[in-house]
Amino acid sequence: MLSFESDYNNGVHPIVLQHLIETNDVTSLTYGLDQWSVAAREKIRIATECPNADVFFLNGGTQTNMTVIDGCLQPYEAVIAVETGHINIHEAGAVEFTGHKVIALTHHNGKMSPDDLAKYMEWFTNDQSREHLAQPGMVYITFPTEYGTIYTKSEIDEIYNICKRFDLMLFIDGARLGYGLMVEDTDVTLSWLAQHCDVFYIGGTKVGALCGEAVVFPRGNAPKHFFTTIKRHGALSAKGRTIGVQFDALFTNNLYLTIAKYAIKMAMRLKKTFLAKGYQLYIDSPSNQQFVVIPNEKVEKLAQKVEFSIWDPYDQNSKICRFVTSWATTEQQMKELESLL
Amino acid sequence: MLSFESDYNNGVHPIVLQHLIETNDVTSLTYGLDQWSVAAREKIRIATECPNADVFFLNGGTQTNMTVIDGCLQPYEAVIAVETGHINIHEAGAVEFTGHKVIALTHHNGKMSPDDLAKYMEWFTNDQSREHLAQPGMVYITFPTEYGTIYTKSEIDEIYNICKRFDLMLFIDGARLGYGLMVEDTDVTLSWLAQHCDVFYIGGTKVGALCGEAVVFPRGNAPKHFFTTIKRHGALSAKGRTIGVQFDALFTNNLYLTIAKYAIKMAMRLKKTFLAKGYQLYIDSPSNQQFVVIPNEKVEKLAQKVEFSIWDPYDQNSKICRFVTSWATTEQQMKELESLL
Amino acid sequence: MLSFESDYNNGVHPIVLQHLIETNDVTSLTYGLDQWSVAAREKIRIATECPNADVFFLNGGTQTNMTVIDGCLQPYEAVIAVETGHINIHEAGAVEFTGHKVIALTHHNGKMSPDDLAKYMEWFTNDQSREHLAQPGMVYITFPTEYGTIYTKSEIDEIYNICKRFDLMLFIDGARLGYGLMVEDTDVTLSWLAQHCDVFYIGGTKVGALCGEAVVFPRGNAPKHFFTTIKRHGALSAKGRTIGVQFDALFTNNLYLTIAKYAIKMAMRLKKTFLAKGYQLYIDSPSNQQFVVIPNEKVEKLAQKVEFSIWDPYDQNSKICRFVTSWATTEQQMKELESLL
Amino acid sequence: MLSFESDYNNGVHPIVLQHLIETNDVTSLTYGLDQWSVAAREKIRIATECPNADVFFLNGGTQTNMTVIDGCLQPYEAVIAVETGHINIHEAGAVEFTGHKVIALTHHNGKMSPDDLAKYMEWFTNDQSREHLAQPGMVYITFPTEYGTIYTKSEIDEIYNICKRFDLMLFIDGARLGYGLMVEDTDVTLSWLAQHCDVFYIGGTKVGALCGEAVVFPRGNAPKHFFTTIKRHGALSAKGRTIGVQFDALFTNNLYLTIAKYAIKMAMRLKKTFLAKGYQLYIDSPSNQQFVVIPNEKVEKLAQKVEFSIWDPYDQNSKICRFVTSWATTEQQMKELESLL
Repeated sequence: MLSFESDYNNGVHPIVLQHLIETNDVTSLTYGLDQWSVAAREKIRIATECPNADVFFLNGGTQTNMTVIDGCLQPYEAVIAVETGHINIHEAGAVEFTGHKVIALTHHNGKMSPDDLAKYMEWFTNDQSREHLAQPGMVYITFPTEYGTIYTKSEIDEIYNICKRFDLMLFIDGARLGYGLMVEDTDVTLSWLAQHCDVFYIGGTKVGALCGEAVVFPRGNAPKHFFTTIKRHGALSAKGRTIGVQFDALFTNNLYLTIAKYAIKMAMRLKKTFLAKGYQLYIDSPSNQQFVVIPNEKVEKLAQKVEFSIWDPYDQNSKICRFVTSWATTEQQMKELESLL
Repeated sequence: MLSFESDYNNGVHPIVLQHLIETNDVTSLTYGLDQWSVAAREKIRIATECPNADVFFLNGGTQTNMTVIDGCLQPYEAVIAVETGHINIHEAGAVEFTGHKVIALTHHNGKMSPDDLAKYMEWFTNDQSREHLAQPGMVYITFPTEYGTIYTKSEIDEIYNICKRFDLMLFIDGARLGYGLMVEDTDVTLSWLAQHCDVFYIGGTKVGALCGEAVVFPRGNAPKHFFTTIKRHGALSAKGRTIGVQFDALFTNNLYLTIAKYAIKMAMRLKKTFLAKGYQLYIDSPSNQQFVVIPNEKVEKLAQKVEFSIWDPYDQNSKICRFVTSWATTEQQMKELESLL
Repeated sequence: MLSFESDYNNGVHPIVLQHLIETNDVTSLTYGLDQWSVAAREKIRIATECPNADVFFLNGGTQTNMTVIDGCLQPYEAVIAVETGHINIHEAGAVEFTGHKVIALTHHNGKMSPDDLAKYMEWFTNDQSREHLAQPGMVYITFPTEYGTIYTKSEIDEIYNICKRFDLMLFIDGARLGYGLMVEDTDVTLSWLAQHCDVFYIGGTKVGALCGEAVVFPRGNAPKHFFTTIKRHGALSAKGRTIGVQFDALFTNNLYLTIAKYAIKMAMRLKKTFLAKGYQLYIDSPSNQQFVVIPNEKVEKLAQKVEFSIWDPYDQNSKICRFVTSWATTEQQMKELESLL
Repeated sequence: MLSFESDYNNGVHPIVLQHLIETNDVTSLTYGLDQWSVAAREKIRIATECPNADVFFLNGGTQTNMTVIDGCLQPYEAVIAVETGHINIHEAGAVEFTGHKVIALTHHNGKMSPDDLAKYMEWFTNDQSREHLAQPGMVYITFPTEYGTIYTKSEIDEIYNICKRFDLMLFIDGARLGYGLMVEDTDVTLSWLAQHCDVFYIGGTKVGALCGEAVVFPRGNAPKHFFTTIKRHGALSAKGRTIGVQFDALFTNNLYLTIAKYAIKMAMRLKKTFLAKGYQLYIDSPSNQQFVVIPNEKVEKLAQKVEFSIWDPYDQNSKICRFVTSWATTEQQMKELESLL
């Protein structure tokens, strides 16, 4: 069965696997104090051009979101996201579990509009009963978004300026960060991004690792006792080397971005094929998630040979389907899918 | 200064005060086991025609909402409300503090549309990733709503049927219940309401009491250990008689509804005056909260002599203002306001 | 039936009731902005000799404890109390509900030993895995304690110095503060206490009010957005005047301490009677709670005519019983109890 | 440097690594629906002789404890543990973070005494104010304990009977389960254990895996929506295969218990060496954690060549030190340590 269901249907990138194998017999300290975690942190500081960054390794995306948000906010504070933001829908209420409200703004192809954000904050600031409301303390955006779209430098700049004006932290969920940074025409780079937010994470699970996300506080601005906060959220890996070794490999010889670039190449080729075959794109995504409108009967046929996600009905006759490429997508798989279309 | 700011700007209704005075020297048990709490519970069972009802006295509205919602839901469940619902905005994230997401539907003059609710639940039920979402467990509506509007019998009936179809509890926030039930043309009665939801409360603070709300589980369907749940939320009054005595008075000789009816009479008179003077109603409210569009300069002038709430800007030249009547509104105040308009 | 069960079996002190009556028809603002709350705050600032104090009125004891503790601590912090501390047992896990651990030290007649505290903090500070532990952030003591005992100036001084050494806040639960301050030989005064802690509260519910506790941050050191924190805990009274009027009366003409002093006089008389009749004190309490060992058959007999609490079995033949006096205890009740003993 | 610091200082067992390598290129479903997770669940059902067991794979110990406890308890319920229980100390207040109190009983060499438990529950059941207390809902024990000790069949039987009598769930933390089951003279087996509790977990992180713990509800008695509960705690692995593949290997050919047995053999040899060299055992542990009293100067010397944990001071002249063996301890390491002693 061909798999374009997601970017976490495969094991681990062979080079990362190789590093796991070759380090396996070496003894280490625990809880992230091992030699590879230490090295990986340093490599991430170099890659992000943030020599003072605080870097923490967590296990998965929802866990990282809830730990960062709860760890950075005061208890009475809320986080602002778009309605389609991962934390607002697909995390089973994990942020609310930590006691914080998610304030949801309208999305625009998955993105937050700086104007919407500014308007909300102006309304809040002027509202006479604002002390009766959850206090906005953070803005959460995803890069790329849940619809595969990408913010431009100028959009992030604008959002970050609004954040600074209203004393909000900016948190960028980078579960698929690599893929976002390797989009063809983007002007956003890893180091630029690091300078234009207060905290972000570099997703590993979806970009070549078995598991693991690297949280970066670019200016050494991790909240006090963040280690304890991680532990308290059940997010501290006893055998921290499991993630450390993987990020050590991913940030050696630019592997992380190299494999993401390959996935983008495959995704753009897939997009062209869909367009050439006359399919309509639901959203024109530049990254590794492609959303295509497919007639119902074709959906059924395809589903016998390919795994992909059915997102939502488009209309009575067709569905919005998601196809995802990854570092593991092969030329062979691409050809087979293309011949099926 | 004239006060039409709210229905809790005054002390306590004289008859309730009289009961507080005459019971003051009598010794009693604590934590709601006192003789007046016991009597008030029985009177509420009779007034609601629910002989098996479980009745609990809490102190205020937000406290009641968070305690009932958290007490009835499983931890992984969410509550559905309209975006303007009190729990979604004006309670500082208290429901999220207890760990539950508020799923917000579009409001229609403050009300939830049964169609919107059914559509949401159908979408949820069919969503392939529904186990990754907060599980809807309860519907929350307010009677009357934050805009003073009232559900009809048929609307509540429809909502309650949807709730039963999807295994959701229906919770009715009655912080201003008396005023809602005394609206001129409503077909909803206290006993009918009690039969068409799973839990509701009878608001005291805004309808003649110093403090206190009576939570009613109409069919003896209070969750197990709800007393402990109340305590755990800091909502258990040690001197429970303080609220018990007041509800004992409010549910003697129909006082609760009688004083609410008077407030509605004053509100309708106020509405007529506004319309006669050429003001536009922002929403045509049948209850004791009236929302009127007033030109900015008139707002400023009025504000020197009357207290009222400025809700939101209506446009550049005028504002949406809220005027509230209560059991304590006097003929004299009505006349003075009318002459100012 | 004679009642020595508790100090909240009665209504409200007559002078406080009188103030509620005479202010009842006056219109006011809401949420603690009313004229009486404003006046009461100022009177409390004068009584505590803390001109910059932040004062907030909450409704009850458990509510106050959980709101203050959760409002002052960072999420990853714990509060240290003795095992018999009210928050550790009799609050249904309300502090844990807010996400914080209660670290329980051994009690000494209800009191925390400065030595125990210092030892715990030294152990914690030196523990190699301390970042894996809940971080102590506050010390909680009760004045008087759950056993009616009283800290001396030197004990509080010592505890407060340890707090400062280890960067812990000191919070004093004063649910029965008046009774503690009026103990015969105590050297602790209200203003001294205010200078030797970071936050405390003046209990109203058990000292003459219908409800209400006054939280005092002596040096204007309330946490940021504490108003919103109160709201988020469901602890904000819409009709704030209900509590404000009562504290306005309690802090006029020294009423609060005067009525507490009377209760202590009655308690000491009761203690003498018990001793004279040959009963053994379980704990030699100087305040309004008296713990006496009573043979089982006498307990049964007494219970037919007097309400009191059975604390715990003492041995097979007798029980520890609690008798409580209050501002409302009458000479007549004292005489009747004495004749029964 | 020799490492006897812990049982998670090494990578992954070679056979498990081999399975990760050989499955790496195969595509799979996500979130635990992959073929290896499915197979591993079935193998665990066979090994535990629980054909109807619900099995879930989580990532680490603290995460598993907090998710199971919060997922099984009602919000107002507390969990009973001994004071040295992992959840009570070394998890940074994670259980309290989920809103539940840990009720701590005295430990006896790390174990809970059935008598203490029965006494506590009898006291609770008879306490007149029990509705004001957190309601005990679960008993938590560790097997082996934090001190390496082991419950006998009869002790667990007794505890489980008390649980059933008082309607408490019994949860066994098996972070080191394999080591416990392979203790030389124990009569407890995996299938027997599964029949004498309501939920337990089979620790992987400390017994040969890179990460992963297998939660078992032996009689298909997982709480409703436990998948959503896992997600809500940030404990759901997107790439579930990472853990599934490992447990698939660990439960093939009895690998899990085989490697644990080896570690116990090494630990017993180590214990004999310590005793032969005249050292005093702090606790006579039959499992892979050995607690030895070592003079301070010897501690310093050893620490230059061996990693081990300093648990606590024993007296002024010596310290309690912990030495841990694991599946990865080599003959060579054993010899070197023995020669250093």
